[in-house]
Amino acid sequence: MSFNTFGHVFRFTTWGESHGPALGAVVDGCPPGIALSEADIQPFLDKRRPGTSKFTTQRQEPDQVRILSGLFEGRTTGTPISLMIENVDQRSKDYSEVAKAYRPGHADYSYDAKYGFRDYRGGGRSSARETAARVAAGAVARAVIPEVEILAYVVEIGGDAIDRANFEKSQINKNPFFCPDEAAAGRWEKLVDEARKAGSSLGAVVECVATGVPPGWGAPLYAKLDSELAAAMMGINAVKAVEIGAGFEAARLRGEENADPMRPGTNQPLFLANNAGGIAGGISTGQPVVCRVGFKPTSSILTPVDTVTREGEATEIVTKGRHDPCVGIRGAPVVEAMMALVLADQKLLHRAQCG
Amino acid sequence: MSFNTFGHVFRFTTWGESHGPALGAVVDGCPPGIALSEADIQPFLDKRRPGTSKFTTQRQEPDQVRILSGLFEGRTTGTPISLMIENVDQRSKDYSEVAKAYRPGHADYSYDAKYGFRDYRGGGRSSARETAARVAAGAVARAVIPEVEILAYVVEIGGDAIDRANFEKSQINKNPFFCPDEAAAGRWEKLVDEARKAGSSLGAVVECVATGVPPGWGAPLYAKLDSELAAAMMGINAVKAVEIGAGFEAARLRGEENADPMRPGTNQPLFLANNAGGIAGGISTGQPVVCRVGFKPTSSILTPVDTVTREGEATEIVTKGRHDPCVGIRGAPVVEAMMALVLADQKLLHRAQCG
Amino acid sequence: MSFNTFGHVFRFTTWGESHGPALGAVVDGCPPGIALSEADIQPFLDKRRPGTSKFTTQRQEPDQVRILSGLFEGRTTGTPISLMIENVDQRSKDYSEVAKAYRPGHADYSYDAKYGFRDYRGGGRSSARETAARVAAGAVARAVIPEVEILAYVVEIGGDAIDRANFEKSQINKNPFFCPDEAAAGRWEKLVDEARKAGSSLGAVVECVATGVPPGWGAPLYAKLDSELAAAMMGINAVKAVEIGAGFEAARLRGEENADPMRPGTNQPLFLANNAGGIAGGISTGQPVVCRVGFKPTSSILTPVDTVTREGEATEIVTKGRHDPCVGIRGAPVVEAMMALVLADQKLLHRAQCG
Amino acid sequence: MSFNTFGHVFRFTTWGESHGPALGAVVDGCPPGIALSEADIQPFLDKRRPGTSKFTTQRQEPDQVRILSGLFEGRTTGTPISLMIENVDQRSKDYSEVAKAYRPGHADYSYDAKYGFRDYRGGGRSSARETAARVAAGAVARAVIPEVEILAYVVEIGGDAIDRANFEKSQINKNPFFCPDEAAAGRWEKLVDEARKAGSSLGAVVECVATGVPPGWGAPLYAKLDSELAAAMMGINAVKAVEIGAGFEAARLRGEENADPMRPGTNQPLFLANNAGGIAGGISTGQPVVCRVGFKPTSSILTPVDTVTREGEATEIVTKGRHDPCVGIRGAPVVEAMMALVLADQKLLHRAQCG
Repeated sequence: MSFNTFGHVFRFTTWGESHGPALGAVVDGCPPGIALSEADIQPFLDKRRPGTSKFTTQRQEPDQVRILSGLFEGRTTGTPISLMIENVDQRSKDYSEVAKAYRPGHADYSYDAKYGFRDYRGGGRSSARETAARVAAGAVARAVIPEVEILAYVVEIGGDAIDRANFEKSQINKNPFFCPDEAAAGRWEKLVDEARKAGSSLGAVVECVATGVPPGWGAPLYAKLDSELAAAMMGINAVKAVEIGAGFEAARLRGEENADPMRPGTNQPLFLANNAGGIAGGISTGQPVVCRVGFKPTSSILTPVDTVTREGEATEIVTKGRHDPCVGIRGAPVVEAMMALVLADQKLLHRAQCG
Repeated sequence: MSFNTFGHVFRFTTWGESHGPALGAVVDGCPPGIALSEADIQPFLDKRRPGTSKFTTQRQEPDQVRILSGLFEGRTTGTPISLMIENVDQRSKDYSEVAKAYRPGHADYSYDAKYGFRDYRGGGRSSARETAARVAAGAVARAVIPEVEILAYVVEIGGDAIDRANFEKSQINKNPFFCPDEAAAGRWEKLVDEARKAGSSLGAVVECVATGVPPGWGAPLYAKLDSELAAAMMGINAVKAVEIGAGFEAARLRGEENADPMRPGTNQPLFLANNAGGIAGGISTGQPVVCRVGFKPTSSILTPVDTVTREGEATEIVTKGRHDPCVGIRGAPVVEAMMALVLADQKLLHRAQCG
Repeated sequence: MSFNTFGHVFRFTTWGESHGPALGAVVDGCPPGIALSEADIQPFLDKRRPGTSKFTTQRQEPDQVRILSGLFEGRTTGTPISLMIENVDQRSKDYSEVAKAYRPGHADYSYDAKYGFRDYRGGGRSSARETAARVAAGAVARAVIPEVEILAYVVEIGGDAIDRANFEKSQINKNPFFCPDEAAAGRWEKLVDEARKAGSSLGAVVECVATGVPPGWGAPLYAKLDSELAAAMMGINAVKAVEIGAGFEAARLRGEENADPMRPGTNQPLFLANNAGGIAGGISTGQPVVCRVGFKPTSSILTPVDTVTREGEATEIVTKGRHDPCVGIRGAPVVEAMMALVLADQKLLHRAQCG
Repeated sequence: MSFNTFGHVFRFTTWGESHGPALGAVVDGCPPGIALSEADIQPFLDKRRPGTSKFTTQRQEPDQVRILSGLFEGRTTGTPISLMIENVDQRSKDYSEVAKAYRPGHADYSYDAKYGFRDYRGGGRSSARETAARVAAGAVARAVIPEVEILAYVVEIGGDAIDRANFEKSQINKNPFFCPDEAAAGRWEKLVDEARKAGSSLGAVVECVATGVPPGWGAPLYAKLDSELAAAMMGINAVKAVEIGAGFEAARLRGEENADPMRPGTNQPLFLANNAGGIAGGISTGQPVVCRVGFKPTSSILTPVDTVTREGEATEIVTKGRHDPCVGIRGAPVVEAMMALVLADQKLLHRAQCG
């Protein structure tokens, strides 16, 4: 089965392949009357855009978004918003090797096993290129939740983590790694460059914080805010792990250490800790919503790996071509987009039931 | 908003509160002609049942399931299967304290913030008691996927992990911790007992493995198998983290270490490693599907914690009553149930599109 | 596939068979804080209840509803509301004939063709008895839309229509036919009694009017208010036709006859006609929402009809037992319930998107 | 709320406005490996295309479809199929009158009441132009159900019905009315032309028959085949009534007249009548699936009609511009498309549950 729609009342559907003429998203359920233009979406696409530094794939894509419907006189009408991004740099390349043998770590084998058939050009639908459509949709979602600020940044690459003491929000956009720790960014430059030159790749951990989420968002029991975030994040290409608040670390704390005590606050309680990551019982508490997302290293590497052909014969494969040495870096804007998309949906869901 | 249904074509809806007369699940979309009786469901409920050892809550609930519909002459008819479990031991207790002040770590504040109103008796709908309904539904799901074997066990309590070298599948049901490592089980006995006596609590990590899943299950892009599992697991009470295969560890590996090389196999390729946890591009590869789930320590502890009243005044609260010192232990059967429910749904989804 | 849930954000799921121990509904997404008790639901069940006159089936069912969850101190909590009705009068009867041969007009053959298997006792899941669960759920829906008044009545039985000039709202509950025209009710008494005695059956047309629906409800394009109503009504047992406003008659009018001119009104425009039945472009206009629903004659008749056995051999069947001579009569409370369920869902959907 | 997706597992989402740059559909859940190209879709768009005779609107739109995704080497891959149709003839016109006052019978007032805002150019999203996207999606659906033949034709215009004795399937595409009765087509030519010249409009009834539907399709209880068809048809612009099989006429028959007796057949029973329209209990019986759909007369007429301005002042409006004198005519290909879309979805749903 194919399920290319995400969300309950604020929903988006994406379409398109790595090497097709275009890709896009249809955003449905957006409230009417919101000011929106391509200029509100483009900056987020630009953050995710490939080819901006040597630490990302060299594919050159302007990722220029067009809004084809759903607006009138610069405002949303409440009807579907169709977003389209043309593929420009589908370099003519020889895919005969990929067509024949499965690249380990990629979706080659599983897509073929499922569909009996696959578009092998650049990974087809399973390419991370599709996340451009999510980022575009995410920009629309942000316009629905102006009360929320969302920020994702990379906290670890190749096992080298930032020092929380050095955290500087202003650093995040000053280096090609979305890294809030200047010193770590410096180390990562060498680390990623070394991996790139060696034809290897590195994993990364992205953290995302949403501030300004009011208490009460979340749809228990099977569309809990944390459950929806987990689904949203785990669905991003190369993601293998998700945690909320203290996450796996919470499993190592005792009850009294993990509790987030409360004090009286101005409009809502003041929490003295945030191990819960802003979510209790699947519903936001008013604290910052915090999640961390683990990206595996890019599966495309120059080291030959054992594999099999479509016919089941042993062979080796080397994944040539243009690839991100650390796909988690460009994952940060995608994580932000998914956070925005989940929160916009939950805002509207909350309004539906609780007025 | 309230979303108490999970699944796309094999769906279940749960209802009921900790202290209501009963709780239950309606399973919809089950294929017809499957042999099913209460005896197929009860053993799974018994595994999750409270009061079976001093390491779990002392609430005494027989958790006897009744099937109210959907069967005829011992087989499923394809119509909704209504499962009901009566609450027996809703001990009359003084809830005036919980009614007044919010228990940190519980859903007390967030439910109140959302609904302006809550059933505070035993946590109401946010109680882990609801998971009995999931376990019952999960037993039906298992009948839909006889080709799959599902096994969950605890791999870590309070930061003390099992030794993988000691892994013995046969041990799992021999100790009250679903622990596959006899030595670890011995240590945990002391650890959990100490925490219990101290009125404290511990976190845990549960691992779940599904073998026999054929390649091809998973509904890209927004109902990927891993995405659905993440949602299913993160939606379990007290869960704060989910990972697939190597999970966060994958973020620390290099591309060549993380690759799962393939060799020719009998009916399908033979994988030489399983960092992917049996899922690539959101679709099963035919390898065992592996996930790990992090449970925070039970929020109910005897240490007084700062909190606020409904009126916003400072106070302290101690959560008396019957609680699990380590809620993750009884989480294992729930994790198994959610795995079964996701896989049954994905099996049918796959059949829908790919025949 | 089995789809026993209806609605988008205000959803209900029904379960149960004609001859099982019970049937019920789970209502999910209900706003919190609404006063609700079994006493609010029972009167609607009583209107639909069998055995109240000789013009309905003689099966004796008290149809006593129990609320098993979702309430606290007499108010809805926003969690699922589980409603259960026990079956009392599943008279032990010989079903061997029905088990062997298909009753024409019933779902016997189609259920068997679909599922390869069926519960033949009293029609199993396809029995109109299931509509009791809808009526119970519908009573909850009414509590969500107190601004709306819903009234269904029978306008035609066996081809004999009411005279609109005789329409008296107060008559509707004064006769066993929900008939607003006293004279017609008198004629129908003879008509239905004659059919009953002859072992035959009659069709009926039910009209339903909802007043107080504000302009703006409806979710274009594929959950339009009229589209949802059509689905809701066509899904009722024995219904074969649905029309909104002037309906098929509109197809015979010219544009200038069919137009509903507008004049300035107090808070909203005043419409000078209502051929649109209160819906334009799938969205309510503020006028009364009007639909008409055609019920076929009950398929259970004493006249022998040609049919085939499960093995494909020719035979004849006579449907003995307790049946409504005109199933459309008891359809009126079901039509009301479905109208309420659609409107409650649309109210919440509207609130989600448009605040 | 906005719901622009239809279907359960074979789903399509449409987007676009009458006067935007383009409109389109994203088809999701299509089985893989099906041969498909633009040439398979274009003929259906051509049937619906405006400007082909004087009996339809004079807007000139080539309605050229482009497939932007979901295909590889001429076959579907199982991923979303994005279809786009550019708007060419959005004639620059003065919309100041429509912007100010509501056109009775159109969605002008209801959209404004809902969204507080609307795209008034040519009806915006509520324009029947959107049905081009449905027709394109419907052509994909047809490829999923090659076993089914679908045919829609007009059986009545302005109250003048065909003579069933004159029914000639071959006539349907020989006249501009999709009329199977040559004599009726001749009469309609005068009738529609007279209405057109008078600036008036006429309603129509379209009948649609699907043959080859195997027994067993339909998802009881709330996605019954007839229920889904009713929703699909009632959601088409200008439709006010839907009936299945004998429809409202069944309400006038006695049980013994309405029964469809069965005789032994070759692979399945042979039905001696089809008052049920091929559906019993919401599940197909193997007989032809038959529905009839009532279209109101086009609301755009040259007769001045009383209305109000946005500011609530009385005025009159005349709807100038290019309009269909009988919108039901071009409704026939849309009815066919919706039938195909429902059946494709039900085929896959059936396969999901019943293998």
